[in-house]
Amino acid sequence: MNDTVKYVLDESRIPKHWYNLMADLPSPPPPVLHPGTMQPIGPNDLAPLFPMALIEQEVSTAREIEIPGPVREIYRQWRPSPLYRARRLEKVLQTPAKIYYKYEGVSPAGSHKPNTAVAQAFYNRESGIKKITTETGAGQWGSALAFAGALFGIEIKVFMVRVSYNQKPYRRALMETYGAQCIASPSDQTNSGRAILAQKKDHPGSLGIAISEAVEVAATHDDTKYALGSVLNHVLTHQTVVGQEAMAQLEMAGDDPDVLVGCTGGGSNFAGLVFPFLGAQLRGGKKRRIVAIEPSACPSLTRGKYAYDFGDTAHLTPLVKMHTLGSTFTPPGFHAGGLRYHGMSPLVSHCKQLGLLEARAYRQKEVFDAGVQFARAEGILPAPEANHAVKGAIDEALRCKQEGKSQVILFNLCGHGHFDMQAYMDYFSGKLVDLEYDESELAMALAGLPSVKAA
Amino acid sequence: MNDTVKYVLDESRIPKHWYNLMADLPSPPPPVLHPGTMQPIGPNDLAPLFPMALIEQEVSTAREIEIPGPVREIYRQWRPSPLYRARRLEKVLQTPAKIYYKYEGVSPAGSHKPNTAVAQAFYNRESGIKKITTETGAGQWGSALAFAGALFGIEIKVFMVRVSYNQKPYRRALMETYGAQCIASPSDQTNSGRAILAQKKDHPGSLGIAISEAVEVAATHDDTKYALGSVLNHVLTHQTVVGQEAMAQLEMAGDDPDVLVGCTGGGSNFAGLVFPFLGAQLRGGKKRRIVAIEPSACPSLTRGKYAYDFGDTAHLTPLVKMHTLGSTFTPPGFHAGGLRYHGMSPLVSHCKQLGLLEARAYRQKEVFDAGVQFARAEGILPAPEANHAVKGAIDEALRCKQEGKSQVILFNLCGHGHFDMQAYMDYFSGKLVDLEYDESELAMALAGLPSVKAA
Repeated sequence: MNDTVKYVLDESRIPKHWYNLMADLPSPPPPVLHPGTMQPIGPNDLAPLFPMALIEQEVSTAREIEIPGPVREIYRQWRPSPLYRARRLEKVLQTPAKIYYKYEGVSPAGSHKPNTAVAQAFYNRESGIKKITTETGAGQWGSALAFAGALFGIEIKVFMVRVSYNQKPYRRALMETYGAQCIASPSDQTNSGRAILAQKKDHPGSLGIAISEAVEVAATHDDTKYALGSVLNHVLTHQTVVGQEAMAQLEMAGDDPDVLVGCTGGGSNFAGLVFPFLGAQLRGGKKRRIVAIEPSACPSLTRGKYAYDFGDTAHLTPLVKMHTLGSTFTPPGFHAGGLRYHGMSPLVSHCKQLGLLEARAYRQKEVFDAGVQFARAEGILPAPEANHAVKGAIDEALRCKQEGKSQVILFNLCGHGHFDMQAYMDYFSGKLVDLEYDESELAMALAGLPSVKAA
Repeated sequence: MNDTVKYVLDESRIPKHWYNLMADLPSPPPPVLHPGTMQPIGPNDLAPLFPMALIEQEVSTAREIEIPGPVREIYRQWRPSPLYRARRLEKVLQTPAKIYYKYEGVSPAGSHKPNTAVAQAFYNRESGIKKITTETGAGQWGSALAFAGALFGIEIKVFMVRVSYNQKPYRRALMETYGAQCIASPSDQTNSGRAILAQKKDHPGSLGIAISEAVEVAATHDDTKYALGSVLNHVLTHQTVVGQEAMAQLEMAGDDPDVLVGCTGGGSNFAGLVFPFLGAQLRGGKKRRIVAIEPSACPSLTRGKYAYDFGDTAHLTPLVKMHTLGSTFTPPGFHAGGLRYHGMSPLVSHCKQLGLLEARAYRQKEVFDAGVQFARAEGILPAPEANHAVKGAIDEALRCKQEGKSQVILFNLCGHGHFDMQAYMDYFSGKLVDLEYDESELAMALAGLPSVKAA
């Protein structure tokens, strides 16, 4: 039997540094702007929200940022995560391609999110912070920060997008088990939340709204900071442990990938896998195809505009240049709640503009077809978000079959779907259907983008 | 920070043999009897239910049984599983004890069950079998066999205890994702099920009833065999990969356990951890305390009678000598569905009779208190069954604190609780209460034990 092969690194091979793509880009991304002055923001503008160590990482151009000892110690609980060769899936697909996947579902919270949650909780504790607010979509990020908060004795308050809060009560139970507080957003606890509820009492919520609520609480409480689970440079940088380990593991396997695939919501699991490879390419290494997969119902990279926009709905954040559907855009309630964000990480967006990566959008049903096919072959049940990457990798493998090419495909299986079983139940009962966004709402959201002269 | 330490073995250290305790016992357990003749059964009596290779293992007295290559290849997906030192928990408890746990939740189905499911599916496929029936309580076993069936192309039909079927719909969804069929038991698909439903239309079911249904289908269909997830010798033997790995990992850690703890339903995760250590002891090695933890609402080891009894409710199985609450006993619907069995593995029962192990029963609420304390310290959310072992280990650590002893405690964290979040929700909302069995029902069930003259 040509069975699944697992590549395991010794824990001495947990990366000692995070990799910062900023050091190798041919040009820097456009600056972050203060929405009042339209001038580039400085570290002090962010000080109410983040500890200074994270602000420094956000603007750093150093190639390597040392991972603090206590963070590496906690990483040891699940890192290095395994890299698998999906031989059983290859056999089912009858493809000459080699399919590898990095599996981040082995973390206590079940996804890649603890890679940055632990780091962020550490820096907050170092600066004496006792409370952190955040938002969460599907709950992967909220439960990761709840886990990290439990380790460092930090109180965590999570604003969870209401549609996910209702769809995924068990994610909430997980956060509560870790000792965090979880609130459906929009809530009546903030001005931003109350303003939305006044317009629409049963508003399903969105990541943009939940961010507004979490930012508002942090900005108005001295003892409280805010944490974001994706989008920002420092978050993407923390995730590069994924790609660094994958490089070492593929070296063990004697293979070098031709195609890298990841799913994109805010961009962090994708960047975590591909940035170390992209950096090597930018320093003169092998050119690889890099493919970002997003949901067709929230298609920031494939249908959004590359423009300055707010990160949140209530416009409490600075302006960042990114692929955006407009901060007022509310995507339909599909199951991959972690991908329901109107914007894309500025760094990933910049790479797209530089022609360093491709983007592709899939519908919900075809993505679950792929996830079930994967689960039956490989035994691991992927999260709905990860199913996008699975589908992307399968399509690449089928292309290889058609072209008779034995390429090497690597994708990030960023989390398991144990807390998303309602989605699978809906899939099997035929209730899971493709959802489309409202074209006129998108047009209106795009028309409402803030007007910004080039800085 | 004295953080959690993980001990990882290279995949070359996956055991090459299963360990069979029968080889080292001072006396063999009493024979299995044919209920018609009251004579010891022979291999042919079991042939309608199991492939011959498994029947041979069931009666083998060889110390080592070689693990077939294809089974070891599949084990590589998640084995060797990690052994952790729970330093964060030790710190919370302020205990001088060292607490280690073997974590079996890393398997694709989330528990120790695939260790035997893969082996059983392999031997069935080798003998040309295309369909297997089984029963499941909480669904850990059913999903493990569904996973193994998907790998070997075997059709799996699972009779799931109705109370669990209703409490845990997501476990069912997992089995269906793997391609298995899952039926609430008692069902109208078998004579055994119909007889129970005729007595009580809304019967909550029990493992004993579900076993009757699965056995009946296998016994009446030539192309179908039956698989059991615990209790039998060969199943316990397959689980000894757990204890063998733990021995090697503790050697890496430079420690030798004084106390071993596991939860017991049918006995397989417990035996898997402790039998290799017990064997070493029986061959003249160190004497250790071995503690079995069971639910006080289904207390076969602490309140049951050591007697010949049927393994199922409809009396389709042979008679085995074990600690039993009587085959008609229906335990209340507590959350640790995997521990809701009227009997105990004959081999574990025999060890208890020989004074080789202790047993202790806990109530549901205190067990969840322990599980939540563990999750907050260690980040891993245990299954309700595993919470029993957690509570047992914590109590031992607190005893060490009281006695000022720095003993080494090892327990088996046999699965994660991702599919049991309703139990945690009930716990936090105050709905999870201690359940008691009906004393008069127990008395009646014990009075109804078959009368067997010593063979």
